[in-house]
Amino acid sequence: MVSFKKIKSFALVSVYDKKNISLLCNILKKNKIGIISTGTTSKKIKSLGFDCFEISSLTKFKEVLDGRVKTLHPKIYISILHNRNNETHKKTFNKTNFPKIDYVIANLYPFDKFANKHHKDSIEMIDIGGPTLLRASAKNYDNVTTISSPNDYKLLKNNIEKNYGSTDLNFRKKMAKKCFKVTFKYDQNIYNWFSNIKNNKKLKLRYGENPNQSAVLQKNKSASIVNYQIQGKKISYNNILDIDSGLDYLSEFTEPTTVIIKHNNSCGVASCKTIKNSFVKAFSSDKQSSFGGVVLINKKINRDLANLIIKNFFEVLVSPGFTEEALQILNKRRNLILINSVKIPKSKKETTKTVRFGSLIQQNNNIKLSKNNFKIVSKNNKISQKEYENILFAFKVVKHVKSNAIVLVKNKQTLGVGAGQMNRYDATKLAIMKYKENFSSKNLVCASDAFFPFTDSLKLLLKNNCTCIVAPSGSKNDKMIIDFANKNKLKLIFSSTRVFKH
Amino acid sequence: MVSFKKIKSFALVSVYDKKNISLLCNILKKNKIGIISTGTTSKKIKSLGFDCFEISSLTKFKEVLDGRVKTLHPKIYISILHNRNNETHKKTFNKTNFPKIDYVIANLYPFDKFANKHHKDSIEMIDIGGPTLLRASAKNYDNVTTISSPNDYKLLKNNIEKNYGSTDLNFRKKMAKKCFKVTFKYDQNIYNWFSNIKNNKKLKLRYGENPNQSAVLQKNKSASIVNYQIQGKKISYNNILDIDSGLDYLSEFTEPTTVIIKHNNSCGVASCKTIKNSFVKAFSSDKQSSFGGVVLINKKINRDLANLIIKNFFEVLVSPGFTEEALQILNKRRNLILINSVKIPKSKKETTKTVRFGSLIQQNNNIKLSKNNFKIVSKNNKISQKEYENILFAFKVVKHVKSNAIVLVKNKQTLGVGAGQMNRYDATKLAIMKYKENFSSKNLVCASDAFFPFTDSLKLLLKNNCTCIVAPSGSKNDKMIIDFANKNKLKLIFSSTRVFKH
Repeated sequence: MVSFKKIKSFALVSVYDKKNISLLCNILKKNKIGIISTGTTSKKIKSLGFDCFEISSLTKFKEVLDGRVKTLHPKIYISILHNRNNETHKKTFNKTNFPKIDYVIANLYPFDKFANKHHKDSIEMIDIGGPTLLRASAKNYDNVTTISSPNDYKLLKNNIEKNYGSTDLNFRKKMAKKCFKVTFKYDQNIYNWFSNIKNNKKLKLRYGENPNQSAVLQKNKSASIVNYQIQGKKISYNNILDIDSGLDYLSEFTEPTTVIIKHNNSCGVASCKTIKNSFVKAFSSDKQSSFGGVVLINKKINRDLANLIIKNFFEVLVSPGFTEEALQILNKRRNLILINSVKIPKSKKETTKTVRFGSLIQQNNNIKLSKNNFKIVSKNNKISQKEYENILFAFKVVKHVKSNAIVLVKNKQTLGVGAGQMNRYDATKLAIMKYKENFSSKNLVCASDAFFPFTDSLKLLLKNNCTCIVAPSGSKNDKMIIDFANKNKLKLIFSSTRVFKH
Repeated sequence: MVSFKKIKSFALVSVYDKKNISLLCNILKKNKIGIISTGTTSKKIKSLGFDCFEISSLTKFKEVLDGRVKTLHPKIYISILHNRNNETHKKTFNKTNFPKIDYVIANLYPFDKFANKHHKDSIEMIDIGGPTLLRASAKNYDNVTTISSPNDYKLLKNNIEKNYGSTDLNFRKKMAKKCFKVTFKYDQNIYNWFSNIKNNKKLKLRYGENPNQSAVLQKNKSASIVNYQIQGKKISYNNILDIDSGLDYLSEFTEPTTVIIKHNNSCGVASCKTIKNSFVKAFSSDKQSSFGGVVLINKKINRDLANLIIKNFFEVLVSPGFTEEALQILNKRRNLILINSVKIPKSKKETTKTVRFGSLIQQNNNIKLSKNNFKIVSKNNKISQKEYENILFAFKVVKHVKSNAIVLVKNKQTLGVGAGQMNRYDATKLAIMKYKENFSSKNLVCASDAFFPFTDSLKLLLKNNCTCIVAPSGSKNDKMIIDFANKNKLKLIFSSTRVFKH
């Protein structure tokens, strides 16, 4: 083998993944670029019939601590980092009597692959030398080419061929950028491992909202939704959305409460003294929509309730507990997805929505609603304790229905849910239409998710047995709305908070 | 100064940010931990009256390349990385005749602070030695303590005091975890800088969906939405959602088309030969809902159209262009938000939704709809070119309306949009209700975003002048639906793709 002094330019090759290595060596050989290498990489290169210099023979420093310290040597870093256009740097480099490294080709110990096995193994898989080599050469991309993946040898080949034996600045910069992506992801994985975030964080879903859309659930560090599932078919994208939505509703209530969700909206919600009655009333709110729905219950399910539930077709049933007997009964519906909610975390503090302009990040609407949010603004101000409970119930429900939303309530049972409309009058008409199809009760309470801009909706509500209305204030027509209430002896309550949801 | 041999344990201190450094030196001194240091750090330490060893005097290797290579020396790394319980490691270490480094206290060049100024400055601010020191000591957290922030000296003090002069394993592990957070964020910043992602990426919004929810827009690397705004008040969270939604609709059409959005749903969509007529027809689809809406137009707006638009109240107007005259006219509505859409990027490939279980990430429904998606399944199969155009138009619209959705169309104008319902029959009733309020045209085309489970909706459509229906197939009652169409001479088309949206 010749002395390294006869070779003008070197590649330092230190790769864990030896894929495509003969392609790489061929490129280097063809372009008269010498190879410097370490340990197993140099063995592999030699076994393929290529020449290479052992790094330890050049630094006069042997690999130690079972490979923990191999390439951390100042001569190597002077060679990589010196500015080729700076005379002082060049002098410093020349004094080292070391080959000039113009290419760093490295890939890292696969920390990811070993993490979560034996602890000690994982620790040994934290690469120290590799990232340092990559980062140093990427920093000096003005002079040095960094190749951080065996999939990029082909790119290197093309670029060297295009440039008659060396690379161009654009390519080196592109590769430097890529290198920092590799190193930040590498350390992020290590950080996640220290934080006990599982590496296999993605749950692949059958598909997204529609069969032509692929989808995954990027899991929480705590636990995946599959940990809470105790029965039934594979949970879908739309199921997860509905369950999440339903749990938001339930988080408003402490009394025994049932919520039935379809397409992220509630078709029935009811609170009662017993959980069984809450289910019966939520279901009878809108039996037609409940078909195939997601049922969420905030108390333990016993035999009786289980027997009631399986009389109808639902996709998902969520509860903080099931008696043994209940489980046996529910088990007859093999496909019914059962979720034990007792350990499911609360909703997050913030929600991210992707838009073409970036990501919208907003605080969730975690406001705790109470009597303090409401102010009676009508002359008719004799509101009983029971009415107040219904007002609060209705407003808690409408907070989670998609806007524009109107909800009609009697005895803590939704009798009409007008969801997702482009104007408030339509939402009101819709809620009343639903109510009239199934009920004829009097003295309804109505909740609106934002102010009434006109009196049209109020007229309709008045005509249809509604005697008490709660809505946020804020319209320039607020006075007109109050006057209308007074003229018609309606009880009108203004909420201090608006509850849009999209 | 004493020989280092008399001191059992050392801290290597190499900090850019010298905050709290005298607190640190006091802790070390009090616990008889020697200090090894470099360059400006050692100057600072000495100036405060503490002893410290220069690293170059220990390695016999001087800092070179203007500080690019200082601490990258095998002796230092053997000291940091050797396993204190491994006899071979200990022998290797002892041979180096080097102090034992049990603490690495380092913080990094503030790349972030210098990035986006002069390019060369930024490059010099990529720290190579610092992350290597931190990562090596964090790797060996079994033996070595890593302190990566000057805010943690107090924690170090408390832990050393609690443990009579040294740290405990839990603390070292916690600090190791923190170190990898620091290094991954550091390299992520460098990667972002290479990718031209601006550091100040967040646009603070007045509030989110409701005034009690704070919100920001995490901007795209290309440009922020504010770059596209040419007039009007400050854009809100809900505006951004609506604009994004509306642009999704527009992306379906090449003909002159207007979409009017309220609460993420279209209240009117129309395609025409002229853009002015498309606006007139979209607006007359549902004038009541259009009040205060977001209007999106896919052609340039001239004087005539501008004059028409300002006759009504809208919040936002989006178009790829405005004539000078149009701008003068629109300028009379100072609050009207004008957006020039010509450079707005297409929708992203994936959308993220936050749920309490993690993040749902799905491919957007970017399917390009065409005649090929449809199959005539009724005996009445004489479908004219014009009818096909209406079918395609209706299905493109219903693809973007929230589920369950039904859209009624005549001459590429929506006559009734039934949005966001918990059952399909309600969505149908709603669309028909809207249609009957404003129109009496015959021969409507109806599009449904998913299959009809029963014939109830079809009966209603038939009774209300609908002669042609397009819906995805997939119900177990598909045959019943086809039979019903045949019996009633309805034209029925099955789509190969479902278009749910939530």
